[in-house]
Amino acid sequence: MRIVESIQELRTARAGLAAPLGFVPTMGFLHEGHLSLVRRARDDCESVAVSIFVNPTQFGPQEDLGAYPRDLERDLGLLKAEGVDLVWTPTSATMYPEDFQTWVSVDELTQHLEGLQRPGHFRGVTTVVAKLFNAVGPDRAYFGQKDAQQAAVIRRMTADLDFPIEVVVCPTVREADGLAKSSRNTYLNEAQRKAATVLFRSLTAAVETFEAGGRDTETLREKMMAVLRGEPLAKVQYVSVSDPDSLDELSGEITQALLSMAVTIGETRLIDNMLVCD
Amino acid sequence: MRIVESIQELRTARAGLAAPLGFVPTMGFLHEGHLSLVRRARDDCESVAVSIFVNPTQFGPQEDLGAYPRDLERDLGLLKAEGVDLVWTPTSATMYPEDFQTWVSVDELTQHLEGLQRPGHFRGVTTVVAKLFNAVGPDRAYFGQKDAQQAAVIRRMTADLDFPIEVVVCPTVREADGLAKSSRNTYLNEAQRKAATVLFRSLTAAVETFEAGGRDTETLREKMMAVLRGEPLAKVQYVSVSDPDSLDELSGEITQALLSMAVTIGETRLIDNMLVCD
Repeated sequence: MRIVESIQELRTARAGLAAPLGFVPTMGFLHEGHLSLVRRARDDCESVAVSIFVNPTQFGPQEDLGAYPRDLERDLGLLKAEGVDLVWTPTSATMYPEDFQTWVSVDELTQHLEGLQRPGHFRGVTTVVAKLFNAVGPDRAYFGQKDAQQAAVIRRMTADLDFPIEVVVCPTVREADGLAKSSRNTYLNEAQRKAATVLFRSLTAAVETFEAGGRDTETLREKMMAVLRGEPLAKVQYVSVSDPDSLDELSGEITQALLSMAVTIGETRLIDNMLVCD
Repeated sequence: MRIVESIQELRTARAGLAAPLGFVPTMGFLHEGHLSLVRRARDDCESVAVSIFVNPTQFGPQEDLGAYPRDLERDLGLLKAEGVDLVWTPTSATMYPEDFQTWVSVDELTQHLEGLQRPGHFRGVTTVVAKLFNAVGPDRAYFGQKDAQQAAVIRRMTADLDFPIEVVVCPTVREADGLAKSSRNTYLNEAQRKAATVLFRSLTAAVETFEAGGRDTETLREKMMAVLRGEPLAKVQYVSVSDPDSLDELSGEITQALLSMAVTIGETRLIDNMLVCD
């Protein structure tokens, strides 16, 4: 497994990799969610590249950039065990030199859900992903359904800007009790960790309602809220029943939807989602 | 010479071209300026691709999108005679499908000169050039110094977004009397065409002043303005002495500068520039 830091080293190393190349962009502190993307890339592609970069431009001024967990040695060990060919660990100075001033933004899709709660977040995401795509030049790139809006926004950017890259979105990986794997779960203390299953329980309740024939959006939202209200440590930021493609909030009777939510537990902000369709 | 319209055809045809691939993006109605870029690409590269697309997103609502001159048959004949390998003529529907919503923008560099006069212009330019770069996948791309700010903005975007593409900027090509070649020169009637040489005369006067030791920015601006005032058909939009890299307007004594101007003659807006340095 080759580990490179500069873009020049990256380009040289990348040129020697067999096609097709699968790419998994990460912010490190890897968990089973990331590794499921790596395995899928390994299965689909001749070679696999992973980037590890905690991207400052997708964190708001009040967010957890400084506290975001990091453990490069452990990450590299995990990736080596998965048979990854190339790991790129750029520095912030490489990615954002002093005179950096170019931004990639997606308009409508970011005016919902996370985009409303975290102004500027998706501009940071799409800008860094465009840079990673150009620097790495993969044939396929892998993202998790856990960040449903991010996946939709990156799909849109990739199509709109004609990147010759297939975006593959993989299922959310969960703990045994249903909590979606996330690097931020490490922020939770024991009581908070228990309370955090409320997102999974709330989504599951709404999915069961849908599958039992409950198609009214207000009923589905109320179902999710009822479960969330039962958890005193949970503070709801939003609960949404939206169109899976446009992310427009839905009303009335539906045949498919993205059920999603953002909840804070203590200081930790957690998101989760499930898709339902007929 | 292969001529393709869809992105799918483009990718297939491009895959068969020998590397390195040189690329000349154009809005068609080709003149010697464009052909000088094609020849430079031909000299530098194993194969040459040209795009012809009048990009609607770089025209303001009051600008000349509808009137912009077009002559595809003539353009194709000229490109064939230059030994171009591949011509891509996408439609607006291909480039901007209904749900298109992704934009590439360069911040500081566009807050000067043309960017101030034409709000949104450079966002349209950088977005379409990012799309063209991704669709064509060239090794080198060729732009004219005539559009000095465009060249600077595209250089910046290419570096900031890590496109693996070398941007090559080629000298302005001029008519015998000094008028910079431009597709928009076709809008000029006979009297206007004569008057249009005032941009060249004004810039030349300032260059001569600089070369004779005149290093004060106010003197250089006044030199340009004096010549422009002598032409009754010319209406000055701006006259600038700016830093060639940042495009910041300069004051006091200088050692190098981009001298540039925008002038309307009748309804036709013309721009031109010259670089001076010690």
